[in-house]
Amino acid sequence: MNRIKLGMVGGGIGAFIGGVHRIAARIDDQFELVAGALSSDPKRARESALQLGIDESRSYQDYQTMAKQEAEREDGIDAVSIVTPNHMHFPIAKAFLEAGIHVICDKPMTFNLAEAIALKDIADKSNKLFVLTHNYSAYPVVRMAQHMVQQGKLGRLRLIQVEYVQDWMTEATEHSGNKQAEWRTDPARSGAAGCLGDIGTHAFNLARFISGLKLESVSAELSTFVEGRALDDNVHALLRFEQGVKGMMWTSQVAPGHENGLKIRLYGSQGGIEWQQENPNHILFHPHGQPSQIITRAGYGFNAQHAGLTRTPSGHPEGYLEGFANLYQETAQVIHQLKQGQDLQTALAPFPLPGTQEGLEGLQFITAMLHSSQHNGQWTQLEDAHELK
Amino acid sequence: MNRIKLGMVGGGIGAFIGGVHRIAARIDDQFELVAGALSSDPKRARESALQLGIDESRSYQDYQTMAKQEAEREDGIDAVSIVTPNHMHFPIAKAFLEAGIHVICDKPMTFNLAEAIALKDIADKSNKLFVLTHNYSAYPVVRMAQHMVQQGKLGRLRLIQVEYVQDWMTEATEHSGNKQAEWRTDPARSGAAGCLGDIGTHAFNLARFISGLKLESVSAELSTFVEGRALDDNVHALLRFEQGVKGMMWTSQVAPGHENGLKIRLYGSQGGIEWQQENPNHILFHPHGQPSQIITRAGYGFNAQHAGLTRTPSGHPEGYLEGFANLYQETAQVIHQLKQGQDLQTALAPFPLPGTQEGLEGLQFITAMLHSSQHNGQWTQLEDAHELK
Amino acid sequence: MNRIKLGMVGGGIGAFIGGVHRIAARIDDQFELVAGALSSDPKRARESALQLGIDESRSYQDYQTMAKQEAEREDGIDAVSIVTPNHMHFPIAKAFLEAGIHVICDKPMTFNLAEAIALKDIADKSNKLFVLTHNYSAYPVVRMAQHMVQQGKLGRLRLIQVEYVQDWMTEATEHSGNKQAEWRTDPARSGAAGCLGDIGTHAFNLARFISGLKLESVSAELSTFVEGRALDDNVHALLRFEQGVKGMMWTSQVAPGHENGLKIRLYGSQGGIEWQQENPNHILFHPHGQPSQIITRAGYGFNAQHAGLTRTPSGHPEGYLEGFANLYQETAQVIHQLKQGQDLQTALAPFPLPGTQEGLEGLQFITAMLHSSQHNGQWTQLEDAHELK
Amino acid sequence: MNRIKLGMVGGGIGAFIGGVHRIAARIDDQFELVAGALSSDPKRARESALQLGIDESRSYQDYQTMAKQEAEREDGIDAVSIVTPNHMHFPIAKAFLEAGIHVICDKPMTFNLAEAIALKDIADKSNKLFVLTHNYSAYPVVRMAQHMVQQGKLGRLRLIQVEYVQDWMTEATEHSGNKQAEWRTDPARSGAAGCLGDIGTHAFNLARFISGLKLESVSAELSTFVEGRALDDNVHALLRFEQGVKGMMWTSQVAPGHENGLKIRLYGSQGGIEWQQENPNHILFHPHGQPSQIITRAGYGFNAQHAGLTRTPSGHPEGYLEGFANLYQETAQVIHQLKQGQDLQTALAPFPLPGTQEGLEGLQFITAMLHSSQHNGQWTQLEDAHELK
Repeated sequence: MNRIKLGMVGGGIGAFIGGVHRIAARIDDQFELVAGALSSDPKRARESALQLGIDESRSYQDYQTMAKQEAEREDGIDAVSIVTPNHMHFPIAKAFLEAGIHVICDKPMTFNLAEAIALKDIADKSNKLFVLTHNYSAYPVVRMAQHMVQQGKLGRLRLIQVEYVQDWMTEATEHSGNKQAEWRTDPARSGAAGCLGDIGTHAFNLARFISGLKLESVSAELSTFVEGRALDDNVHALLRFEQGVKGMMWTSQVAPGHENGLKIRLYGSQGGIEWQQENPNHILFHPHGQPSQIITRAGYGFNAQHAGLTRTPSGHPEGYLEGFANLYQETAQVIHQLKQGQDLQTALAPFPLPGTQEGLEGLQFITAMLHSSQHNGQWTQLEDAHELK
Repeated sequence: MNRIKLGMVGGGIGAFIGGVHRIAARIDDQFELVAGALSSDPKRARESALQLGIDESRSYQDYQTMAKQEAEREDGIDAVSIVTPNHMHFPIAKAFLEAGIHVICDKPMTFNLAEAIALKDIADKSNKLFVLTHNYSAYPVVRMAQHMVQQGKLGRLRLIQVEYVQDWMTEATEHSGNKQAEWRTDPARSGAAGCLGDIGTHAFNLARFISGLKLESVSAELSTFVEGRALDDNVHALLRFEQGVKGMMWTSQVAPGHENGLKIRLYGSQGGIEWQQENPNHILFHPHGQPSQIITRAGYGFNAQHAGLTRTPSGHPEGYLEGFANLYQETAQVIHQLKQGQDLQTALAPFPLPGTQEGLEGLQFITAMLHSSQHNGQWTQLEDAHELK
Repeated sequence: MNRIKLGMVGGGIGAFIGGVHRIAARIDDQFELVAGALSSDPKRARESALQLGIDESRSYQDYQTMAKQEAEREDGIDAVSIVTPNHMHFPIAKAFLEAGIHVICDKPMTFNLAEAIALKDIADKSNKLFVLTHNYSAYPVVRMAQHMVQQGKLGRLRLIQVEYVQDWMTEATEHSGNKQAEWRTDPARSGAAGCLGDIGTHAFNLARFISGLKLESVSAELSTFVEGRALDDNVHALLRFEQGVKGMMWTSQVAPGHENGLKIRLYGSQGGIEWQQENPNHILFHPHGQPSQIITRAGYGFNAQHAGLTRTPSGHPEGYLEGFANLYQETAQVIHQLKQGQDLQTALAPFPLPGTQEGLEGLQFITAMLHSSQHNGQWTQLEDAHELK
Repeated sequence: MNRIKLGMVGGGIGAFIGGVHRIAARIDDQFELVAGALSSDPKRARESALQLGIDESRSYQDYQTMAKQEAEREDGIDAVSIVTPNHMHFPIAKAFLEAGIHVICDKPMTFNLAEAIALKDIADKSNKLFVLTHNYSAYPVVRMAQHMVQQGKLGRLRLIQVEYVQDWMTEATEHSGNKQAEWRTDPARSGAAGCLGDIGTHAFNLARFISGLKLESVSAELSTFVEGRALDDNVHALLRFEQGVKGMMWTSQVAPGHENGLKIRLYGSQGGIEWQQENPNHILFHPHGQPSQIITRAGYGFNAQHAGLTRTPSGHPEGYLEGFANLYQETAQVIHQLKQGQDLQTALAPFPLPGTQEGLEGLQFITAMLHSSQHNGQWTQLEDAHELK
């Protein structure tokens, strides 16, 4: 057994997503966390490292030093997980890629579109793996849904309805000491998008992932309902995908009663599919003209090719962490292949891992949505996003 | 006991909504069906009357004769139910109102906005009761939801998400002998709106009813997915209500797996509410910061003032027909008051019955939606609808 | 059109089940309520008749007079609905049957087993129709479930789990002026069984109806949780059906959170079925080795032969009253055939209407359950019930 | 950071529950798997160890050697996880406890009651920790349910309805090469109970855990529906708890449509609670006389004292593995305290970890259930179990 050596930037004590990445990396025992620049606060960085069993010598004060020194070590890290606020994704990812270290990065990929274009270029040239943790695409039944669409179970696609709604920012949480809310509502750290960047990108990615369709243009209405909040907390949009497919998106962080309500429904000429993240172990399948079916993770009718992504029999619910772990597990498989000399494209082929292309589209999406909303809902092309102000 | 004498125009054998109106009128035993012009086909009209126990002498060949003769009879009808395709609503309603007979009319109120304006005027001057059967507003827990909004249980409203989706027109049903589909896709009988007029108007009315808010403007995208269909079968829209409230609407008749999926969700600064027509005996109430609650029809926490609209104890489900019957029951109460000499406004005051104002707004809504969609989603004011092409 | 003339005994103002019977009779417009002995209190009887539009001359002070005089009238009632407390069912049913009038009777059929045996004998000899209103068996999808069992969709039956649970007697409701609770907890009016007779008989009937299997023996534990209550308020039982099928039953009126929670699940060697009364428009079907299916009333996969029992398209929920109305509708069809000279067996054949056999088995069930519980759960045969103390 | 050194007996490649224990131990990073006797087949043991990263020198051919040698090593294991078929639990647990090593053991604790009595005695004298992995008791909202019962939120308890139903043995799975089914239906490895021991013990434990009540006696009916199966595959039982609380239990492995359907409902004089394992992130709470509430893991109204058992915010579902991990996490905390010199009772006090008392009661339960079923459902006391044949 040969665990992959992992480093982490961000994710010190008290952070949310850093802990998630660590558990996800641990569940299938394919990674070993050996280095980190866990906080910009040296004391917190040190204490976090200690708590996580990272050797003092590999607890770095800044990511630049970490990238440099780890690259030089014989036993240096194979990959780094970037779990900082958005504005730091680009420089950190750049540093590690250029140091020859694979990158696992939280979403959105970068602070803005220009960075996304630049990062994609850097990554493409680096020949290193770049994984963007759009974790919801790795739930086993989400993969099943994608497979069913590909198999034509829905016929010709017509409609995609996606929503991602939460309630934790119904009040001005960012002024009550909630660190998560603070940086998410701070344009300097989050970018120009609030709710849109934080969860809208997940909703977009999920629709894109299951349908396989490019989103061509959007008509958006961003709102800020909580007084004094600097960024949007609610997003309404009409969507036009390629092939004449139409859709809607609603993402909100001010919808009381919704904890983490990511939900997607796709409809075609011969059927429909529904999935909800809060009860993620099944999909509803509606073959037109027949009774609806409940297809469960690892249950009857579940596609065996996705069996590797489940750890327990049907009826033993797997959740958010296991879905997230699937990204790490597949990342591990790719890195193992790379270590054995396989080239990147071949190693990646079996796995639908989100990468820089998805990251770039995510920033195009954000940019086009912002533009549309600023222009009273004008339909805006994603491919024109780089030309927009 | 003094049943109200009711006539019906349309609703002959094989029709759908006519039968619904008759059962709705019968459930609470307040009406007696004594006259009809049940079909434009004389044979079918006669047979339908026979089957329904209407005396031959009061089975009319046309609505004009019926209005005239019933108005002249000492024992003539008090009210008429209009259950024809849309294009006939206006002339029939006009005829009966002008004959001094109360009107109960299916939705949408008229074929187009001009007729709606004219009919409102006629009705206002007639001093007769005009009830538009937006039946979903009469479900007891929908009334409860309205009451909770009025009481401020949601705080300041922010968001309204409404959808009404069906699947029965996923294929070209109108070409397989389905009469219901035929007239609904025929511009000559339905008007310029297909799915939008048929069910979109219900969705709009429901949002308007529960929230109490005027819909100011819309940005719409109408689609026709089934080849050769003359009218829209899918509607996506962004909504702007007064007081800064934002919303979305999705109505579709090509969404496999949805039978009659009318669903509404409202969110405010202090809570949210959800209701689904397919399981209509409860609402979900989300008081912000507390566990969600299930409030059931006639159950604990259900408002006693709505108790009159339920016939069975909680847990004994009431459905679509009982909800529809509530409109008839309230109509009966108003007519009884009018017979005793009360003036119309006073008699109507206790009951939130939809009438010509709701009908007019429905046509403004349709007109604005069509205009917006024809102009690539341009935001369109409802109050400007009468000036639009 | 020729409505059946109906009388009613019991069901005066303020009663529950009488009103339900009246709406059920009205929904399909097959009956006309023309006579009644609506209350043992003459004033209440008179006022109730007035309110219901029953002619004063046919509002009787007692059921004996009513049976006699209605039998003598040329335009006398065809059928009577008996909606009194249990102890009166037998003498009233006897009087009307012997007067040559069809009987529709609420459950349980009689006060005790001896009466049930006697009534069955009387009814058999009368050649009159006797319908016992086990209304839950007339929900369309319950009929569908029965049909699927008969078709072998579940394979060889193995297990029946049935429960019927309510919460309205969690506290001593019978001492707070609740009339419904008063007579249900009074052995002089209800018989020796409380919850068992009131709702346990429905649960038993439903299991018997869908499975088609005789219940052979029971092991029961009756409890009374509310202090001072004279009859059982909770029933637990193990069941042995013919053909080696095993089951369980739980009925309770002290289970907080359950309004009218009748639920049944059947399992065989090749599949399972679930149905819940509180959301009664679908069944879950579990074909073994395949995804579970949702079969909806009037939806895809719903058996056309049951289509006559539904009034609205799928997705337009029908409820408790419509299910109840199905019994009245079928009763009307039988009576119309009888009027046309058909013999009783032939007229009844197409309809699975519960009658004296079901009523008798219900009393055997009650008797065996009581005996078992009194003997510490001793397994007790239903067919031995008549020999038990 | 100081991980606890863990060994494992059983759980080689292809086993189910061994893998679950390993992930559970890993999730919170408190354990390090360093030794094992993973299979009685030496080749499989070796390969399994290799795959798991266990040093060859600590991959043992038998548990006796492992217990002896690990006890002698300075860096020997602190605890061992026993994940073999039931018949091996006793000798293995005995060997490790006597070697001074803490034991984490799967359920049921032993092969029979005599062993359970003996093991409890051994464990009590050993002063070592013994944890029985009744994992369902460690779901956060199950802990919440227990807490609510203790706080009196249900008033005085009256009823406990528990079921644990699966479908994977609907056919003779044990003859189609399913290893899990093979040993579970083999009396030599499972003991005298099939479904009863495998999942009935979980159902019993859960009822006991949440209610805090002793189960006094049972009346059971065990069945074997699949021909040729040596042990029960369906269990029906009536339950009598202390304080007059009544209950029912249904466990089955032949109920099509149920994957891992563990469900419990408790009712008292002032409220009810429901929980289902297949959607384990919330409970339904029914305060009598008020609307029902949905209490979610880590959501509003969730008890802060259980917050340590959740890793993600509400709405990010945790599942079976996280619930299982909670037992390991608490076990780790106890062992850390013991290492720091705390005595066992004090260290255990804050954690409701199931141990030998729960294991002993489990075997009493099995024994009493078997006896009752063999005696036609005779009520049988658990405390008399040791005297039964």
